[in-house]
Formats: sequence, C-alpha cells, structure tokens
Amino acid sequence: MKKDLEIIDRYQKEIILLGQASALLGWDQQTYMPKKGVHARAEQSAILSSVIHEKFLSDEFFNAVKNLNKEKLDIKTKFLVQKLFKELSKARNIPKEFVEELSKAQALSFHAWQEARDKNKFSIFQPHLEKITDLRRKQADYLNYFLNFDNRYDALLDGFEEGMTSEKLKPLFDELKVGLIKLLKNIKESKVYKSHKEVLLKKDFPKDIQIEFAKDVFKRIGLSEDISRIDLAEHPFETRIGVNDIRITTNVRNDPLFAFGSTIHEAGHALYEFSLSESGTYNFLRDAPSTGLHESQSRFWELSIGMQKPFWEFYFPKFNDKFNLQGTLNDWYKEINHVKPSLIRIESDEVHYCLHIIIRFEIETELLEGKIQVKDLPKIWNEKMKKYIGIVPKTDKEGVMQDVHWSEGYFGYFPTYAIGTMYAAQIYYAIKKDIPSMDNEIKKGDYSIIRKWLHEKIHKYGAEMYANEIIEKATGEGLNPKKFIEYLNKKYQELYQF
Amino acid sequence: MKKDLEIIDRYQKEIILLGQASALLGWDQQTYMPKKGVHARAEQSAILSSVIHEKFLSDEFFNAVKNLNKEKLDIKTKFLVQKLFKELSKARNIPKEFVEELSKAQALSFHAWQEARDKNKFSIFQPHLEKITDLRRKQADYLNYFLNFDNRYDALLDGFEEGMTSEKLKPLFDELKVGLIKLLKNIKESKVYKSHKEVLLKKDFPKDIQIEFAKDVFKRIGLSEDISRIDLAEHPFETRIGVNDIRITTNVRNDPLFAFGSTIHEAGHALYEFSLSESGTYNFLRDAPSTGLHESQSRFWELSIGMQKPFWEFYFPKFNDKFNLQGTLNDWYKEINHVKPSLIRIESDEVHYCLHIIIRFEIETELLEGKIQVKDLPKIWNEKMKKYIGIVPKTDKEGVMQDVHWSEGYFGYFPTYAIGTMYAAQIYYAIKKDIPSMDNEIKKGDYSIIRKWLHEKIHKYGAEMYANEIIEKATGEGLNPKKFIEYLNKKYQELYQF
Repeated sequence: MKKDLEIIDRYQKEIILLGQASALLGWDQQTYMPKKGVHARAEQSAILSSVIHEKFLSDEFFNAVKNLNKEKLDIKTKFLVQKLFKELSKARNIPKEFVEELSKAQALSFHAWQEARDKNKFSIFQPHLEKITDLRRKQADYLNYFLNFDNRYDALLDGFEEGMTSEKLKPLFDELKVGLIKLLKNIKESKVYKSHKEVLLKKDFPKDIQIEFAKDVFKRIGLSEDISRIDLAEHPFETRIGVNDIRITTNVRNDPLFAFGSTIHEAGHALYEFSLSESGTYNFLRDAPSTGLHESQSRFWELSIGMQKPFWEFYFPKFNDKFNLQGTLNDWYKEINHVKPSLIRIESDEVHYCLHIIIRFEIETELLEGKIQVKDLPKIWNEKMKKYIGIVPKTDKEGVMQDVHWSEGYFGYFPTYAIGTMYAAQIYYAIKKDIPSMDNEIKKGDYSIIRKWLHEKIHKYGAEMYANEIIEKATGEGLNPKKFIEYLNKKYQELYQF
Repeated sequence: MKKDLEIIDRYQKEIILLGQASALLGWDQQTYMPKKGVHARAEQSAILSSVIHEKFLSDEFFNAVKNLNKEKLDIKTKFLVQKLFKELSKARNIPKEFVEELSKAQALSFHAWQEARDKNKFSIFQPHLEKITDLRRKQADYLNYFLNFDNRYDALLDGFEEGMTSEKLKPLFDELKVGLIKLLKNIKESKVYKSHKEVLLKKDFPKDIQIEFAKDVFKRIGLSEDISRIDLAEHPFETRIGVNDIRITTNVRNDPLFAFGSTIHEAGHALYEFSLSESGTYNFLRDAPSTGLHESQSRFWELSIGMQKPFWEFYFPKFNDKFNLQGTLNDWYKEINHVKPSLIRIESDEVHYCLHIIIRFEIETELLEGKIQVKDLPKIWNEKMKKYIGIVPKTDKEGVMQDVHWSEGYFGYFPTYAIGTMYAAQIYYAIKKDIPSMDNEIKKGDYSIIRKWLHEKIHKYGAEMYANEIIEKATGEGLNPKKFIEYLNKKYQELYQF
C-alpha cells in the first residue's frame, strides 16, 4: 500500500507540474509571445499535452489506484482514490484514435468559427459544429460506459460540474428565468429606467489610471506582488502557473468598469487558486471541485462586493478624484448598475446575464438529445433572445456565434456560469449573516475578514467534497436561485423605485 | 531505414520542443515570475528536464541511430547521425546516479557560492567547489570512455567547443596574452591615456530613452517585433523560445552603453538563433556547432560593429540629441573606447577582456589536472590579476568568486568567450574584404548587407560542420589571434597616439 501511495503521489505531482509548464505556454501566448511564434507554440503545447496524457494513462498509475481502491483508507485518501479512479477510468474508456480525431476536429472547427465570424456566415461554421456535436455525443457514450448517466448531456456536464445533472438544473433554471424576466419587466416599466441618463461613464478615463486602480483592487483582494501578477491580454483570464504564482490578465476599454470589473472577477478566481495551492501539496484534491464553484468565487467578488454601495463608498472618492469626474457616489452607483439588454453575454449586466446562459443551456441540451438541428440554431437563438431578453441580433456573429465554447464543443460548460452566480449570492448572504460588520470593513477597503471566511468555509476544502456539499455546509443549503433573485429584487427595487 | 529516420526525426523534434518549453520556464523566471514562485519553478523545470532526459536516453532513439550509423547516407544525414551517436553515447556512458549526484551538488554549490559572495567568505564555497571539481573529473572520465581524450579538461571542453583541445588552445592563448599585454603597456604609457577625462559619459541618461535606443538597434540588426522581444531582467541574456520567437533581456545602468551594448551583443546571438531555426526544421544540426561560434556572433556585433566609428556616425547624433550631450562624435568615440583595467570580467573593455578569460583558462586546466588545489585559488587568482591586468581585488567576491560558472562546475566554458572574440575579428576582416562598402552601409544604420553575409557564410550551415571549419571556409583560416590583435593595435594606436 505504501508503494501504491507513493506512485499516485508521484504521478499527481508530475502531471500537475507539467500542467503548470503547459499553463505558462498558454499564458505567454496570450501576453508576451511574438506574433509569429504561434506555430511553434502550438507544437510545444501539443507535445507537452501528449506527455501529460501519457502519464495520465500509464498502467502503473492506474494499477496503483485500483489497488488502493480495495484498501481501507482514511476518508480523505479514500475520496482522492475514488476521484482518481473515476478520472482515469473515464480517460481510459476513450480510444486514443477518438482523442486524436476530436482534437483535429476541434482545431478545424475553431478556425472555421473564426472565419465564419469574420465573414458573418454561419454556413461556414455549420458543418464543423455538426461534426463536433456528433463527436461529443460519441464521447458522451464512451463516458457513459463508466458513468452510467441516462443521457449524454449529463456525461459532459459531469466533467465541469460533478454531481450536477440536467434534471436537477432544469427546474432551478426555470425558477431563475421566471424571476429574472419578472424583475426585468418591473425595471423596464419604471420611470427611473425610462429617464435614465449616462453622464459620468461618458467622461474620459485615462488608461494608466485604470491600470493603477486595477492593480490596487487586485492587491486589496489579497493578491500581493510576490505571489501574483496582472498583465495585459486581449481577453481577461486567470491561470495558476504554480504554488505562489497566480496570474491574471485584463484589458482596457473606454468603460473604466471593464478593466476594473474584470480584474475583480479574475482576482476572485486567483484568490481561490492561491488558497488551493498554498500548502504546496501536489494532489488532485487541491483543486476546485467544480467549474461552478470556481465561478462563484469570481462572481462573488465581481458582483456581491464590487457592484455594491459599500465597496464604492471606498473607491468612488478615489475615482472621482483621479478621473476628475465631479460626480456623486449616488449617481455613479446608479450609472454603473444601470440595466440594459445586451446582445453579447460577456457585456451583459447582472440581471440579464443568467438569461444568456439559460438560452445556451436550453439549446445545448436539446442539441445533444437531437431534438433540434445545428442548421436551425441561428433561428432558435434569435427566437429565444427575443423572448427572454427582448432584443434580436442583426448578425449571427453577434448571435449564435458570439462565444468560443461551442466551436470546440464545450457543451455543459455554460451552465456553470449561472451556477457560480447563484452560489455567489448564497455566499454573500451567508457572510452577511456570519459577519454583521462586513459592510463596514468593505467601506474601509479592507477585505481580510471576507478572505478569511472564504478560506475557512470554501477554499480550504479544495475538492474534498462536491461543490454543492461545500455550499450547503457553508450557507445552509445547496444550489438555489432564491437568494440571487432576492438580492437582485432588493437592489433594483431601490435603484429603480418600482 | 525509413522507419529509423522517422524515429530520429520524431525524437529530435520532441526533445527540441520540450527544450523550448523549458527555455520559456527559464525566461519567465528571469523576467516576470512573481518572486515566491521560485520553488515551484524549480520543480517544474526539474520534471521537464527529466522528461527530456528520458527521451534522450530512450533505447528506441539510440537503436535507430545505431542502425543508421551502419547505413549508406547522404553527407548531411551522415553527419547528423554521427553527431547523434556521439551525443547519445556520451549521455549513456554516464550513470543515472551520477547525474543525480551532480545535479544535487550543483544546486548546493550554487547556493553556497551565493552565500559566500554575500559574506565575502571563500571558505564557505571552498568545500563545494572541491566536490564539484571532483565530480567533473569523474564525469570527464566517464566521457573519455567514449571520447578517448588523453586528458580530462578536453572531455569537458568538447561539450562546448567540439573539435577544440587544450593543446590547440594553449599556444593561441599565449600569443594572444603576449599581444594584449604589449598593447596595454603602450596604451598606458601614452600621454593621451594619462590625460584622459570623462565628460560625456557622466551626463544624465534617462532610462526610457536608453530602452528606446536599445529597441531601435535590436530592430536594425534584424530582430523585428513579430519574431522577437526585449524585456528587462537582472542579467542580459538571449534565449530561443521557438521558431520565430527569439528573446533577449537587458538592464539599465547609469552607463548608457550597458543597456545599449548588451542589447547589441544579445542581438548578435538572437540573429544567429533566428537564422538557425527559421526553416522550422527540428534537427540537432539546426544549432550552433559550438559555444565559441555563437559567441563570435554576439562579439562581432558588439565590438566589430557597435564600438566602431562608422556605427557611431549614425547613432551619435541621435544620442547627442536625445540625451542632450552637447558633445562631438570624436569625444564620444574616445570616451566609450577608453581602456581601463577592471576587476570584473563582464565590465571589462575589449582590450583587457581576453586576459580575464586566459586567467580562468589557466586556472581551470591546472585545477582539473590536479596541479593546483581549490583552497589556493584566491591566491593564484590575485597573482594572475596582478601579473596580467595590473590590479588586485580587495575581496574574493570581486575576485575568484565573481562568476557563476565554476559554482556549477562549468569548466571548459570560459575559453569560448575568447574564441568567440577572436573569431569575431576574423569575421570582421573577412566581411571588410568581401564588401568594401560595408562602412558606408553602417553609417546609414543599414546592416542588411552584413546580415546577408553572416547568413551565407556562417548561419546557414548550422552545425553541419565544426565551428573552426565554418570559420576557415568563411575567412580563409581557422582560429587565429592575429586578426584580433591587429584590429586592436590599429584602433588603439589611433586612439592613444603611441
């Protein structure tokens, strides 16, 4: 048994470390790599991935896991061994030829998606999306040899949100949808909404000052210079390069909330990753148990902290001063929280956002089941946009082709954005209950008490429990849209006085 | 045979690509990595190295090489197979335990060297250097099973400067030493030397303008933004991250020639690496045939171009303007070329520089042979400094412990700096002969004609011949100190009017 434990320790460590080297290749590609280096980078990443994949699939590793699976182990080790058994079994059930076929199809599909967007021509993308959808169905079938879900979507969803199924999600998303549409109706019928005018956000926001504020909030959230960094990249993202080496990127737009808000969002991810890896243990449980829980950490900071009054009581005077806004906190708060339907998910406000997700969830579940066809997606997309959000894209580029996810067939990923958003609201109310002085600390720009709560209640568990169990333990209940709807109603009733 | 060729192609490609990933880990560590990421980085690098080492030592690779070694092959492939046979045989002759022992001893020795420098106490470093020296002797013995040199130093030297031996080098270095000491005597006895005053170099050189000039010269030498980059790091270095991705670093000091000169030096390396990898062929012959030839490329640009009048006819007016120097080209040229003994190799002028190397070469050859002892190195060092350079360090930090090389036992590396310097002068005269208009082009800041010559005569061969053969073909003769001495005498007679 000791030898088997050593084997699984060694494999996990090697796989994680090589994964970090691979993460650095990715980070560098998005930040500093010279443009023409892209071809070599693809080859470097591919060979490193294949080295990692080989280790992941090694018989020595799997045999050690199988042996340990029969032993009497402490709870934590047992959970780890079960997780490894599941992950390795899943991977070993997929033929090598299939992995290669999928990988090639993804590369082609991604390029077709880019071209289709450039030319705003869904027909260029359509055959590739059809192929990718077929392959993902096939993959789901391979996975279900082991996972035994009664549908294909859940086999894919399980890879992002372990323990969650479409059956559990559907009623929650329905409740959320109804709540959001009702709230939006109230907002849009209000006088305040109709007479809204943007003044402060139209001012001039010099880029260097924006970056200064991004760096400041990043540090305040808990990411100091000696363990993390912010760089510029086309898209904001967060990546763990190693223990004590967590990185995020941002980008600067006219709207100062883009760099600042995306930094707060990525800082939430980064703080979580830092907590997870801090111990220096190379272990698959020192990871998020699900993509949704990871997202809850970014959404919590972005929305529950970064879009509230107490937060801006600290930051607005500094913004007012540095950007020379000559405005009031109240006006600023109203402007940054103004609700406005958007065609684009990532530009959406917090009220509309989950409707964008639900559209995608509804489409991808039906697509996987074969109830709808790829060729009909633009039409279906636009109908749902009209119905839920009230606006219709003029082009498929701004519609069904706006996100990269489907181009590589990442079905089952989108729901985690909404799950994270709902979890975030649940966390927010739990902290408020546990720490009555929370708002006062936030007003001082001091988040240490929040950081501590998150560490104790969420971060420290890593993947030692399922996401929903961690949330239940921390907040008193599992995934539930009610808190999020309650939070939105309270906030926007005040803002729009309906 | 076809299968064997495929095998060696695949292994070379994988090893080179993983080596590039490893190079990125190194680059990042010196440029952007958060300070506390260092421990994880060491582990990432170690595992990646071991993956590469495993591939390098794989029986499949070696068997394919052995098979091909018996076949009838075209000249180029034959040379490649012989090179691979040699490299793999060398590596396979060294026991795994020894590799690990050396690697651990190096890490400890490096840290001891750092501590010894901080505390200026050679005795802290001494036992480690003794251990490392012993291990390098042992390694040389392992290598000589295959290489059959009649001494240990040559087995190590061969790893940096294939085809060169200490027996060949000694008389060349002796001739160089005599020439340099004689020239220095003439310089130091001259009136001009005695009355030298520094004025322009004492002015103020804002950092951002220094960086601008560094970027400008980097680009003019041939490194455009889409295939290369410059970043700041503690020490200047050059690294090939991939095809079309060559990077250098620099650093800014008060002396504007530090950033500018180091950039020209590293640009020489970078241009060579770019030419070597440009074709996109992953092959061990697409590399420099020796460290000395690599160094010749940097020294050529740094000295033969960057420290000459025609070069400054282009750049001085810009310096004069941007730094507001209010000086003349002649004064500037005199000041930047002023000869002054230095305790530190990397701060040395071009006349003294090779004497620093010869001191190291004499010490390390005798040390390897056991003619001198580690404990006596400080004394021997200071005696040689007095004799060749005329000054004596007050501390061992500024003396025998100034360079990192010996801390990890890189014996046989130092001579390549002097070899590169001599080659550079030979190349300079060859280009001057081939292209009479060279100086005129340089005066216009246009180096394309030089770039083309270097590509045709040096770069394009990669490692398809030995370094000395390439130089012989390009310049008419192999390694010879005469051209370098001739160049220095001509230049400094003019400058110091003796």
